[in-house]
Amino acid sequence: MKNGFGIRQDGSLGRISKKRETLEPYDAFIKPLAVGLYTPDVYYAIYNSTDDLIVGHECVGEVVEVGEKVQDFKPGDRVVVPTITPDWRTTQAQDIGWAQHSGGLLDGWKLSITDDGALADIMRVTDADMNLAILPEEVSLTQGVMLADMATTGFHVVELADVKFGDSVAVIGIGGVGQQAIAAAKLSGAGQIIGVDGRDFLNKTGKEYGMTDFVNINDGPAVDQVLALTNQRGVDKVVISGGPVSVLSDAFAMVKIGGSIGSINHFGGADTIPLKISDFDEGLSHKKLIAGLTQGGRVRMERLINLVKYNRFDPGKIVTHKYKGFDNIEKAIEEVKEKQDDIIRAVIYFD
Amino acid sequence: MKNGFGIRQDGSLGRISKKRETLEPYDAFIKPLAVGLYTPDVYYAIYNSTDDLIVGHECVGEVVEVGEKVQDFKPGDRVVVPTITPDWRTTQAQDIGWAQHSGGLLDGWKLSITDDGALADIMRVTDADMNLAILPEEVSLTQGVMLADMATTGFHVVELADVKFGDSVAVIGIGGVGQQAIAAAKLSGAGQIIGVDGRDFLNKTGKEYGMTDFVNINDGPAVDQVLALTNQRGVDKVVISGGPVSVLSDAFAMVKIGGSIGSINHFGGADTIPLKISDFDEGLSHKKLIAGLTQGGRVRMERLINLVKYNRFDPGKIVTHKYKGFDNIEKAIEEVKEKQDDIIRAVIYFD
Amino acid sequence: MKNGFGIRQDGSLGRISKKRETLEPYDAFIKPLAVGLYTPDVYYAIYNSTDDLIVGHECVGEVVEVGEKVQDFKPGDRVVVPTITPDWRTTQAQDIGWAQHSGGLLDGWKLSITDDGALADIMRVTDADMNLAILPEEVSLTQGVMLADMATTGFHVVELADVKFGDSVAVIGIGGVGQQAIAAAKLSGAGQIIGVDGRDFLNKTGKEYGMTDFVNINDGPAVDQVLALTNQRGVDKVVISGGPVSVLSDAFAMVKIGGSIGSINHFGGADTIPLKISDFDEGLSHKKLIAGLTQGGRVRMERLINLVKYNRFDPGKIVTHKYKGFDNIEKAIEEVKEKQDDIIRAVIYFD
Amino acid sequence: MKNGFGIRQDGSLGRISKKRETLEPYDAFIKPLAVGLYTPDVYYAIYNSTDDLIVGHECVGEVVEVGEKVQDFKPGDRVVVPTITPDWRTTQAQDIGWAQHSGGLLDGWKLSITDDGALADIMRVTDADMNLAILPEEVSLTQGVMLADMATTGFHVVELADVKFGDSVAVIGIGGVGQQAIAAAKLSGAGQIIGVDGRDFLNKTGKEYGMTDFVNINDGPAVDQVLALTNQRGVDKVVISGGPVSVLSDAFAMVKIGGSIGSINHFGGADTIPLKISDFDEGLSHKKLIAGLTQGGRVRMERLINLVKYNRFDPGKIVTHKYKGFDNIEKAIEEVKEKQDDIIRAVIYFD
Repeated sequence: MKNGFGIRQDGSLGRISKKRETLEPYDAFIKPLAVGLYTPDVYYAIYNSTDDLIVGHECVGEVVEVGEKVQDFKPGDRVVVPTITPDWRTTQAQDIGWAQHSGGLLDGWKLSITDDGALADIMRVTDADMNLAILPEEVSLTQGVMLADMATTGFHVVELADVKFGDSVAVIGIGGVGQQAIAAAKLSGAGQIIGVDGRDFLNKTGKEYGMTDFVNINDGPAVDQVLALTNQRGVDKVVISGGPVSVLSDAFAMVKIGGSIGSINHFGGADTIPLKISDFDEGLSHKKLIAGLTQGGRVRMERLINLVKYNRFDPGKIVTHKYKGFDNIEKAIEEVKEKQDDIIRAVIYFD
Repeated sequence: MKNGFGIRQDGSLGRISKKRETLEPYDAFIKPLAVGLYTPDVYYAIYNSTDDLIVGHECVGEVVEVGEKVQDFKPGDRVVVPTITPDWRTTQAQDIGWAQHSGGLLDGWKLSITDDGALADIMRVTDADMNLAILPEEVSLTQGVMLADMATTGFHVVELADVKFGDSVAVIGIGGVGQQAIAAAKLSGAGQIIGVDGRDFLNKTGKEYGMTDFVNINDGPAVDQVLALTNQRGVDKVVISGGPVSVLSDAFAMVKIGGSIGSINHFGGADTIPLKISDFDEGLSHKKLIAGLTQGGRVRMERLINLVKYNRFDPGKIVTHKYKGFDNIEKAIEEVKEKQDDIIRAVIYFD
Repeated sequence: MKNGFGIRQDGSLGRISKKRETLEPYDAFIKPLAVGLYTPDVYYAIYNSTDDLIVGHECVGEVVEVGEKVQDFKPGDRVVVPTITPDWRTTQAQDIGWAQHSGGLLDGWKLSITDDGALADIMRVTDADMNLAILPEEVSLTQGVMLADMATTGFHVVELADVKFGDSVAVIGIGGVGQQAIAAAKLSGAGQIIGVDGRDFLNKTGKEYGMTDFVNINDGPAVDQVLALTNQRGVDKVVISGGPVSVLSDAFAMVKIGGSIGSINHFGGADTIPLKISDFDEGLSHKKLIAGLTQGGRVRMERLINLVKYNRFDPGKIVTHKYKGFDNIEKAIEEVKEKQDDIIRAVIYFD
Repeated sequence: MKNGFGIRQDGSLGRISKKRETLEPYDAFIKPLAVGLYTPDVYYAIYNSTDDLIVGHECVGEVVEVGEKVQDFKPGDRVVVPTITPDWRTTQAQDIGWAQHSGGLLDGWKLSITDDGALADIMRVTDADMNLAILPEEVSLTQGVMLADMATTGFHVVELADVKFGDSVAVIGIGGVGQQAIAAAKLSGAGQIIGVDGRDFLNKTGKEYGMTDFVNINDGPAVDQVLALTNQRGVDKVVISGGPVSVLSDAFAMVKIGGSIGSINHFGGADTIPLKISDFDEGLSHKKLIAGLTQGGRVRMERLINLVKYNRFDPGKIVTHKYKGFDNIEKAIEEVKEKQDDIIRAVIYFD
């Protein structure tokens, strides 16, 4: 058996006790030590099951048991469990070089969507050798849990935008992922980094990560403000890490001719994204767009872990709220929901 | 003085006699030998002058005089004059590696927009050493004139879509540029090449260039037909060489997860391009988009000339209608306008 | 049991009967239908076993049995078995995007090196869903067997050299792989393609594949001849598909400033490759080099199969000698060995 | 007239007075304010003239006069003069995207090779709009002069090696350029950065720039030490910023399968670089190599200036020795020559 917290068949959120999965040859069982916390609406938004489902998709834990084919991990190892734990044996991985869409759109993201997640006393991870990464002593639990989703996503969108030495970069949406994107832009050689958001309290952490200018969307159109900060030339690259559907056209409007836009934004809440022909320069200006879910898996985590180990950045700065104890999950989630005015990210610790 | 045909200050189309430009040190004067012909609406669409302006933007000609700083061309040389003759000394070229937008969006395209074009007894080309290319004996006038715009544009969009060995490719719009895009896709290693258009008469030439399947948009939604031809998987790459604003969303819908879309389409006739969130997979599927005007200049032309010289493809197949003589310009343009049901491209010869 | 032909523990070449492998869940058993033949020295060169080992590493066959986890193949399917059948669940594949070196240098190449090969009445292929590809009706056995190694290798080296529209390309070594590299260069948009070899009889097939010039190394230094054919400018790209260690320096000498060299050559027979500082321009000229073994696996084969299916090229042109019947293996290999003056590639058929 | 210091026709080093160049339309005259200093052997090594030639190839100065076609600079502007001031109107720039080899190998580097350099009361720069960059207030003279050659070269080699998030990088040679390469590797997202050199005093500055490990080549073979620091796996990328010809083979030996090597080293002092076949893995392991001179020009300088302006790194840390006054050039050069045991870079100031 296992015990956790999640979405129940009747649609309510609460405690769940269910049968533990069978340990298949490549699987591992993990005891979660620190788990990222979200508001209920996030859990409902990604939930795609007809069963009781334990939620929680950012985790650092301890290996408690491994399948017979697992070679590189053993009970007692502390590991980062990435949000995206794909199947690596797929022709799509051979074909496009990504595994997060392995057998179909997004199906590399299983935890808390189709498979039980991390707000539990035990969780299963598939293909442990390909999806887990050792957490070294130099990296804290808080840092590790922020690598699982926030950092890999923030770094991915900067990779998509292809930031180069000396680039100016606009980061639209500087919540948890956007903050990591600022760090990633700095570690890609960006010069000017302009954060775009409506929440003033994010300014301070953004500056600590490397943001040079803050554009508050309540002060006027973001496009105008970004153009003003770049002598009307536009930024070299735009990173979209949040926002409503209108941010896509804005991104085209604020990027220079020949610039690039990367996005990890979830464009929802509408049927159609309106792309203004003038923002798109009638399709003639070589502004590039690539939008997609972050990769996950072991090597990705190991690379990010190395960045923390060697003091290149601290992903833990965005953890503004910390909770402790399995019994406090409900209370913590409630508080997270109420504190949206000053919270960036929250973590609960079980060790 | 020079004499030509173009758009007059009063907005009418007709004969123009005007003062010849001063020959600046890097300029050349060219006597046009073969010029691509368009319908009047095309000339009006790109016209951006307040003066009498000679039109014509695809040309093979003979050098008649060169400025004192021109090193590689001399009177008597037969040359291709590309449609795009940029300024190469611009920081934008240093920055983004393209010169077609040199000092501003599209300003590498001068001929028949801001500068006099090729339907004239003499034309000026700026920066001859950087913008002209010798037409070798192995390449005909017809082939040469089709390289100036049609071929470079068709090859550019295939480069933008990044076609690889074995890719399936959908080419939306298989008029003059689309036909060249089919040839370019084949010469990029494409396997299946699906042409999408509403004009049946384009099927035959398309097949000669390497198209494997023809989707007539009058037979049902293009997306459905393309998906049916690819076992519902979508094509690896989409090339947009024509169509209304709706083709952008269609392109996202018919390309596979992780695929790429290249476009040289001029998106006009509307304020907004509606991009369906479902076609865009909510921004999560790594479908890439890059859209822009072809490059021009000397090296680009030399590369395409080599492809013809070594028999890799024949850009002249799309020239379905040929006219002769400076005096017949009006008549020829009139005929081109009337024959839109069976014409791909028309050329007028002055030699 | 299975019966085949290969290298015996005592070092002799001959018939081998041995126990058939156990069929693991992801494996398939294949009955070879057509197998590429080599001279004994090739088999000895790659052999890396201490046991009786069946040789043969290019194969088209029929599936006779599949493991319980195999999803996409069933008995009766005709398939291409690529020479390279890697393990795809490796961190190296996640890290560098290649699987041919999966767990260590070259270990994606198993057949006829560490695992039994295809000159047998039955062969095992690991990870069938990831490594086999259906042979469609439009593709002959001969074509299929040439895709397994020759074509994928020839196309790989052209990918490594990064051939673009209008490039001039020198192909050093135009035997089996080099011939396919010529075809691949043409299908990458190359203009001038210069074959470099000492064997005149290869000229004819090379021209059929798209070679424009043939440089016989017996007529003088290859570098001088290639420079003469390119107005002393050098070629845009060099493909090394064969030759002694000296070809590396030659490649640097014949490629232009900023050009690229791809190599799939096996540099053996010496301890050191002498790279002349003058050929390397003292390390200052941005000549790129990348050298490595071809990828294999299912998607790669499917892509090449599509090129044949859609008539983009015929890999079978290089099969100059054909043999029939399991009993004739010894005789065929003997003949292959004797006919090195006019053979490109030989295939034996068992169906 | 102008007065400076350089190599005289008789081969001696000393004061030179010569006629000032004519100011051509795109030229600018600059009054040097700070100039990098080298030992005499460096000046002799690059000298390629038959005339009296003023040396000095790293400079920040003040514009004193501009040609009639210069648009973006005016007398009084403080500017960085990059070491590489190419001709941008060349077909090579169109072709390969680099201008440092514009009309021929390295001919983008003119200053102190074929044209007079910066140790003078006035210097000419060709194509000012394309080659100069404004020095903003936030950037010191010392920082500016280090951008001209050291930083752009150090950043270039890291670009060539294609450093990605989480990479381990070995930097061979951590003198002036190598120190900047360490900073660039950090700003490209490198994790572990291993400096390789024989000079202990470079350790401290290297660590400040982001080096994590120092390998002293006097302590044993560099390859063994680097492999030991990476669990025998090798580094992801190697940057060669100095060393004898043997470092090329070493670089291949210490980089992982599928890794990349960038080099800006000047490989001299021998006819041949010995590349060990075992280090090169017989040409089968996809280790990439690209070696070449840094780019220069305006946009490059502006990008690096932005990195300093936004506090991403301080190129001035490597300036260990500072001199003042035009009259002290000889004395300063003499001291630079004597202090090779503790000097990284020296600058002389004229303002």
